[in-house]
Amino acid sequence: MLLRMSSLFLRTLRDDPADAEVPSHKLLVRAGYVRRVAPGVYSWLPLGKMVLENVTRIIREEMDRMGGQEVLFPALLPREYYEATGRWTEYGDTLFRLKDRKGADYLLGPTHEEMFTDMVKGEYSSYKDYPVTLYQIQTKYRDEARPRAGILRGREFVMKDSYSFDLDDDGLKRSYEQHRETYIRTFDRLGITYKICFATSGAMGGSASEEFLAPAETGEDTFVACRHCGYAANAEAVTTPAPPAVTGERPQMRVLDTPDTPTIESLVHCLNERHGMAVTAADTLKNVVVKVTTPGSGETEVLVVGVPGDREVDFKRLEASLAPGEPAIFEAEDFARHPGLVRGYIGPQVLKDLGIRYLVDPRVVSGSAWVTGANELNKHAVNVVAGRDFVPDGTIEAAEVRAGDACPACGSALSIDRGIEIGHIFQLGRKYADAAKLDALGPDGKPIRITMGSYGIGVSRAVAVLAEQRHDELGLVWPREVAPADVHIVGTGKENQIEVATRIAEELRDRGLRVLLDDRAGVSPGVKFKDAELLGMPTILVVGRGLAQGVAELRDRATGAKEEIPIAEAADRVEAACRA
Amino acid sequence: MLLRMSSLFLRTLRDDPADAEVPSHKLLVRAGYVRRVAPGVYSWLPLGKMVLENVTRIIREEMDRMGGQEVLFPALLPREYYEATGRWTEYGDTLFRLKDRKGADYLLGPTHEEMFTDMVKGEYSSYKDYPVTLYQIQTKYRDEARPRAGILRGREFVMKDSYSFDLDDDGLKRSYEQHRETYIRTFDRLGITYKICFATSGAMGGSASEEFLAPAETGEDTFVACRHCGYAANAEAVTTPAPPAVTGERPQMRVLDTPDTPTIESLVHCLNERHGMAVTAADTLKNVVVKVTTPGSGETEVLVVGVPGDREVDFKRLEASLAPGEPAIFEAEDFARHPGLVRGYIGPQVLKDLGIRYLVDPRVVSGSAWVTGANELNKHAVNVVAGRDFVPDGTIEAAEVRAGDACPACGSALSIDRGIEIGHIFQLGRKYADAAKLDALGPDGKPIRITMGSYGIGVSRAVAVLAEQRHDELGLVWPREVAPADVHIVGTGKENQIEVATRIAEELRDRGLRVLLDDRAGVSPGVKFKDAELLGMPTILVVGRGLAQGVAELRDRATGAKEEIPIAEAADRVEAACRA
Repeated sequence: MLLRMSSLFLRTLRDDPADAEVPSHKLLVRAGYVRRVAPGVYSWLPLGKMVLENVTRIIREEMDRMGGQEVLFPALLPREYYEATGRWTEYGDTLFRLKDRKGADYLLGPTHEEMFTDMVKGEYSSYKDYPVTLYQIQTKYRDEARPRAGILRGREFVMKDSYSFDLDDDGLKRSYEQHRETYIRTFDRLGITYKICFATSGAMGGSASEEFLAPAETGEDTFVACRHCGYAANAEAVTTPAPPAVTGERPQMRVLDTPDTPTIESLVHCLNERHGMAVTAADTLKNVVVKVTTPGSGETEVLVVGVPGDREVDFKRLEASLAPGEPAIFEAEDFARHPGLVRGYIGPQVLKDLGIRYLVDPRVVSGSAWVTGANELNKHAVNVVAGRDFVPDGTIEAAEVRAGDACPACGSALSIDRGIEIGHIFQLGRKYADAAKLDALGPDGKPIRITMGSYGIGVSRAVAVLAEQRHDELGLVWPREVAPADVHIVGTGKENQIEVATRIAEELRDRGLRVLLDDRAGVSPGVKFKDAELLGMPTILVVGRGLAQGVAELRDRATGAKEEIPIAEAADRVEAACRA
Repeated sequence: MLLRMSSLFLRTLRDDPADAEVPSHKLLVRAGYVRRVAPGVYSWLPLGKMVLENVTRIIREEMDRMGGQEVLFPALLPREYYEATGRWTEYGDTLFRLKDRKGADYLLGPTHEEMFTDMVKGEYSSYKDYPVTLYQIQTKYRDEARPRAGILRGREFVMKDSYSFDLDDDGLKRSYEQHRETYIRTFDRLGITYKICFATSGAMGGSASEEFLAPAETGEDTFVACRHCGYAANAEAVTTPAPPAVTGERPQMRVLDTPDTPTIESLVHCLNERHGMAVTAADTLKNVVVKVTTPGSGETEVLVVGVPGDREVDFKRLEASLAPGEPAIFEAEDFARHPGLVRGYIGPQVLKDLGIRYLVDPRVVSGSAWVTGANELNKHAVNVVAGRDFVPDGTIEAAEVRAGDACPACGSALSIDRGIEIGHIFQLGRKYADAAKLDALGPDGKPIRITMGSYGIGVSRAVAVLAEQRHDELGLVWPREVAPADVHIVGTGKENQIEVATRIAEELRDRGLRVLLDDRAGVSPGVKFKDAELLGMPTILVVGRGLAQGVAELRDRATGAKEEIPIAEAADRVEAACRA
């Protein structure tokens, strides 16, 4: 392959696009890889399409190597498939819905569990047919509330999704393990740095689940890692070790005057200054009210969540814990309708009488004593004991996780980082097989309910993640296998420098290398060098002023190393660098 | 590649699907290549995906060889782009429209003229940038009124669309010619039989246009061909040679009683029997009333079309002539609202007074005399002379074309055949460049309006067309380059026949061939042979009973030729057949 910049459909930009906040978005637009069409909807220009194609090819090769069989589903899907599993409504606003000319309901597939299940049910019937793993690489649609960061979180995006179908749980575990190994191989080959984290199952139902997170400052996902034992989990999946229950006599609950203390900070100050106590925020119990809607049902429940006062409620953890229920903030007008809930002074003592469910942080163990609201304006209660003065309806993982929290595996201090989800593997179990009644006829003539695994890789997102992880202040730095070309040959200035550059480029093309050649006339060497750094091919060869002395300059984009080499050896040296 | 049928996700069907009418649909479903999801919406199973991928690869290679540059647009597009050109409304019910969560209007791209134009405008500015040709291979959406024949006319389908951008008409002609040559090479390589036909531009606007039609009995398109001069055109594009104008004195127009003669047949009978005339249907002038709606405007015009009475109005030709106007039948209630139009007895004599536009077949030349309606019940007029008794507002190509009609190029008799459109090349001109104001800055500093060509290949349709053209009563017969595998190796019966078949398959895989191996245990030889014929790999090797005598059977799927060959030479012989 030989791409000549004199005719390549590419214009680089000097300035960052106005709407871009993260490096990958800025660089992919500036370097002419993608262009915005609508919020979260992008076009791929020639160089971008090549990277996307390279990423796709690597994923396909690894899926095939694992024994996955490729199929392709439509994106336009009739409602009925998603009605059967309840997801037509459960998906809420994230689902793009439309009608055809006859008024029939359709959706744009956000994920294809229903379709894969239906396909296997259509073809297979006997236990001898199983196991099977099917995959597709296909365009998906999700009407994200906050599409962001270019192709990092798009509304139209390319995904590899696969499903394993097994006769029993051991089979599912094997399929899961195979996928895990395949993902490791795939991401290693793509050159993405990642961490495998325990994950919650979210709206998907099912049990064991891990996410491949690419550490990135701009990532939307928070994950914790333990350097001691290697435990890693996304923030939603982190479990809080519960301290032992407290036994023994405790002083009576007392109500104190705490005027004008709707916040934890003001409360702690008041107790210590006015009442001579020595409490910290961690001794208080903060009660947060939310409304929880179950999609499709239209019903909304009022729920109170209790967490230690030194911690915020992490809304994403709360959402994950309540899924598929959707929590929303309890607004002023909601308080107006519930006079029993005194804003800023809520205590759990009255919730049972109000008929409101109460879930607490795992640290709120039986016998633990708390300062909390007295359900009267300007009053708080102390020595409020769990199990004595209130009985929670259960625990919930909703409090924020902090660096230094105890690792649930070994108790060491956890660190916290941000990352981008690039892959998800997931023991889905029988949820979709149950909905579709996907059975295999067993050797004894009895039906065996199939168990499924679900596995995804964000294909277009992987391109953005690579840009996010592999760039410097000058531009992109592609790993060789995904780069649009192996080498960027720059011919600067005089006619015969471009001529020699072209000759070397043709020679390397004939040797099977993928070559990008800057053969533009009338473009200054400075602009050409800047473009070469911005575009990010792994190897750069400059045929410039040195030509008079018979030398060219060989550069390594990643390390920045430069070396003068004889023109006569240029093709050999570039080939060696590219095949290293 | 080695696909083992013991684990391949494939189940062939003995019976044709109930909804299938055409061979390609029946066979692609029976052979397990595709499955229906909704009307005009299909999934691809593993073998089908491979064929689709092979077709895609061939098209991409030929586009790249031509110098086309691949990009990729989204399918989800905001209304604004299509609003600017009027197509948001012009497309009518064929456009899938939807809203996002914020209520913004989107569509699923049926074609991408607007997007390509906008992309080039975004990147290019100088005359030095041009010419450029961009293409994409992408999923498109059209809400067809009558999706049919499986993947032959789907509502979600894969298309290659490309656009050329040139500074002047000569450049456009060159780009058009390049595409024409590329399409010839592509379809030849795909193994599709085709005819290049003059075409009308339809709703696209523009001038020169040709369609690549694949002759097929089940085709939706009618095309004419002249065996004498090679002229070929789709029915919509055929022009009718006009006879010379008639001069000289003609008898006065006369009105005759023609009771109960609303049809041409009854009229001719009445004139000849009752009035002693000797007229044929060709002497009468049939006047057909239609309502024409201009999409988006909401306005409807009444139009009368006059054709010789021995010909029907071909509605598709009428539609093509009136595009983007959409004609509809003039119903009984419409006649009720227009008492001046006497159904069955309409003559053009009164249309001017009624303020109704009148277009005639090119055969209705000035001075020609006709029998036509007298605009009174049970009366017709004779000696009604064009130019004297009525003056048409223009001519229209609306009359049916018949085998034996005169070739517009050489006057010889035309033949008529049916075909499937597989490609379309089209000198679009400046319609979209005008809408987008796509200019290049010329060498003199003045803007040059860009001129465009538009070129399409139905990628998924090409798979169906191949199945339509290349099959026999036993099943599919793929050309080698698009076949899922080069060779289908069948191991029948006994353990060691499958063992030997597997050994040969592995050997051929190692030599770089794509091999499909029937290694299923417990499946009868008869079923395996039937499957091999149904699936349609070009070469079949049977390792069966002959193994005891050291021979296998080599079959050519297309010719049906069979030959016994020594097992020891099997790999060599198969390879030779596949590389021939």
